[in-house]
Amino acid sequence: MATAKHTLVRMLAELGRISDEPTNLTRTFLSPAMGLANAKVGEWMREAGLSVRVDSVGNLIGRCESAHPGAKTLLLGSHLDTVRAGGRFDGALGVLLPIVALRELRRRQLELPFHVEVLGFAEEEGVRFASGYIGSGGYTGRLKESFLQLRDDQGVTMRQALEKFNGGAFGPPTAAHLRKNLLGYVEVHIEQGPVLETEDLATGVVSAIAGQSRFKLTWTGQSSHAGTTPMALRRDALAGAAEFIVGVEAVARRRPGLVATVGSLTVAPGAANVIPGTVVHTLDVRHARDAVRRAALEELGEFSKSVATRRSLKSRWQRTQENGAVACSPTLTAALTRSVKAVQGRSIVLPSGAGHDGVVVSELAPIAMLFVRCRKGLSHHPDEFASASDVGVALAIMIDFLERLAAGKP
Amino acid sequence: MATAKHTLVRMLAELGRISDEPTNLTRTFLSPAMGLANAKVGEWMREAGLSVRVDSVGNLIGRCESAHPGAKTLLLGSHLDTVRAGGRFDGALGVLLPIVALRELRRRQLELPFHVEVLGFAEEEGVRFASGYIGSGGYTGRLKESFLQLRDDQGVTMRQALEKFNGGAFGPPTAAHLRKNLLGYVEVHIEQGPVLETEDLATGVVSAIAGQSRFKLTWTGQSSHAGTTPMALRRDALAGAAEFIVGVEAVARRRPGLVATVGSLTVAPGAANVIPGTVVHTLDVRHARDAVRRAALEELGEFSKSVATRRSLKSRWQRTQENGAVACSPTLTAALTRSVKAVQGRSIVLPSGAGHDGVVVSELAPIAMLFVRCRKGLSHHPDEFASASDVGVALAIMIDFLERLAAGKP
Repeated sequence: MATAKHTLVRMLAELGRISDEPTNLTRTFLSPAMGLANAKVGEWMREAGLSVRVDSVGNLIGRCESAHPGAKTLLLGSHLDTVRAGGRFDGALGVLLPIVALRELRRRQLELPFHVEVLGFAEEEGVRFASGYIGSGGYTGRLKESFLQLRDDQGVTMRQALEKFNGGAFGPPTAAHLRKNLLGYVEVHIEQGPVLETEDLATGVVSAIAGQSRFKLTWTGQSSHAGTTPMALRRDALAGAAEFIVGVEAVARRRPGLVATVGSLTVAPGAANVIPGTVVHTLDVRHARDAVRRAALEELGEFSKSVATRRSLKSRWQRTQENGAVACSPTLTAALTRSVKAVQGRSIVLPSGAGHDGVVVSELAPIAMLFVRCRKGLSHHPDEFASASDVGVALAIMIDFLERLAAGKP
Repeated sequence: MATAKHTLVRMLAELGRISDEPTNLTRTFLSPAMGLANAKVGEWMREAGLSVRVDSVGNLIGRCESAHPGAKTLLLGSHLDTVRAGGRFDGALGVLLPIVALRELRRRQLELPFHVEVLGFAEEEGVRFASGYIGSGGYTGRLKESFLQLRDDQGVTMRQALEKFNGGAFGPPTAAHLRKNLLGYVEVHIEQGPVLETEDLATGVVSAIAGQSRFKLTWTGQSSHAGTTPMALRRDALAGAAEFIVGVEAVARRRPGLVATVGSLTVAPGAANVIPGTVVHTLDVRHARDAVRRAALEELGEFSKSVATRRSLKSRWQRTQENGAVACSPTLTAALTRSVKAVQGRSIVLPSGAGHDGVVVSELAPIAMLFVRCRKGLSHHPDEFASASDVGVALAIMIDFLERLAAGKP
């Protein structure tokens, strides 16, 4: 096991050096570095006894075939692309860890009564075409024809890029599997948040991937002279927005698990001696249960109205994004939790506030996710870090999970 | 009187057409339009019986000499320059109104027992050299040598501009008068705020020109992922700033006459899905009494500390401007108030939140100011407007004020 852990840590480091940029780690959809990454990871897959192929959207697929009659397939994986100047754990960990786990099981001469596919999705981050999940979308048959018209910064359409990649015509593929033939999908991923660090745990089990609503709010008042307009006669858009932002935080704090964020805000005219006439800001609200998120949004809608009325402002909401929550499979999650307890002692469940390939794969198969602690919750950054020790715990959990599943006692 | 009012309204319209730009009203320091304005207003001064000169910084000075032995001088005036795309009342009203008042008194054959100088200051707005009060600074002997190094957008220094204007070497002039020879300075100006409109009054007497403190505040927290960072683990710089902004408003509302404004605010990183790590915003606080302003700032300083401590943020204050309040002369203001009551019935006093030439002239002579209602408090805008009726009320007040002062019963 110590050897397996060190192998995994070495692979993470090696893969982390395969980049489209000389100084930062950047691998984007169908880029040269993605080709090199697929080649390198494919090599490791073969060493682990997997048969390797790359599908028409660039997903790297390593398959471990079971001799068992009527075997179903278990999917394990994550993505191999990165954000610009990203870290070497986000995505990569969830692809490399299963490879090493399977290698270890092979060393132990364990015969699995199910097939396993290790998936290195070609695209999750949405960097090149400003729209993510291209890899999992292709694998699950969920890549829409309309997406092929998206263009990258160079004006190349996704269709053109995929035609070039395939050396001929491209159409969105059908799903790689029928739902009835799948056991499920398990994704290991760094947490990208601070909960596990705060809880002093190496790993945690994901309950659900949070649903998310995103809005642009516009507050309109009356800009006027900061020196000559008495407080009682003001219609200050920023004072109204500030009251709302304090309320957003209060509403979120009253609802366990809810996160609500105003991340971007602009003021017009925006001069020190002019009362703000217009404020535009974002609002991002997430929760693992859609009903909780919707109730919070209803309360915030009412609150914004009361702020606007009291202050003679206008407040306008524009929805810019809306995703329902994706619940993890109770059965798979219970099995994963048993392995977490066996290896780590204590297990917690936590929602994922960020989106993952599992969101898309959940349309084809039950899913479960294991989060690994990352330092200071930092991700999408060159300093992104998960310790060898924590990575080793996650690896041991995956091996335990596969062994129990193989023994028919998950 | 009706004739005098119409004369004044016609002059305001005519002067409002003298501009450096074809469509907007823009007159800046020593520009061609300022030369034309001085010529036109000088003509009106002569018609009113004044002797006219232009001093070395371009101020237009019309003098009405008294035959009375030992006569002192009363100063009346405002500025003839404008902001870019400004209005035709800001400044101009305070120069033209005294000319028409003196013309009317001459028609009534009233002999004044004091000299009067009507001042059309060459620069107040700070447009050309990003620093205002050049005209009143020159007239009162307060123009500092160091200011002459300021450059305009074309790279021309103030010294070069003034040397060209004077056709030779230029040095800052000494004060036009000794303090002991001055009765005071009275400035008529549009309010540039909404108080008189709200009070339904044509004019009001200014108690003081507010002192002003301006700051740049920086709130530093920790930027992190909006989806994966629970509310309890956040150090959200914007949530802290928002709480502070709501507090700024509350502190100002508790102190009559205080105005406090956050007019500009920026958020970093500034993405919808990232918790703000840094917020920078302005704070502008003004009051007619320095002690009230200082007490409010002390309270706000303590409040920002408590917000920062409670939220594990840092808050940093940088002072960017500090001007003490300038009190109007009780004697002159009482005399002006008597005339306001005689003409208008009711009189209110209000502070000026904006700066005026009177700030600088107050270093040489006691000052008083009369504000005239302007529509919606709008100024520094082509739609700036004061009604003929209100302008007429202000004119009648000035005439009454001069008559009472002449009769020795101010």
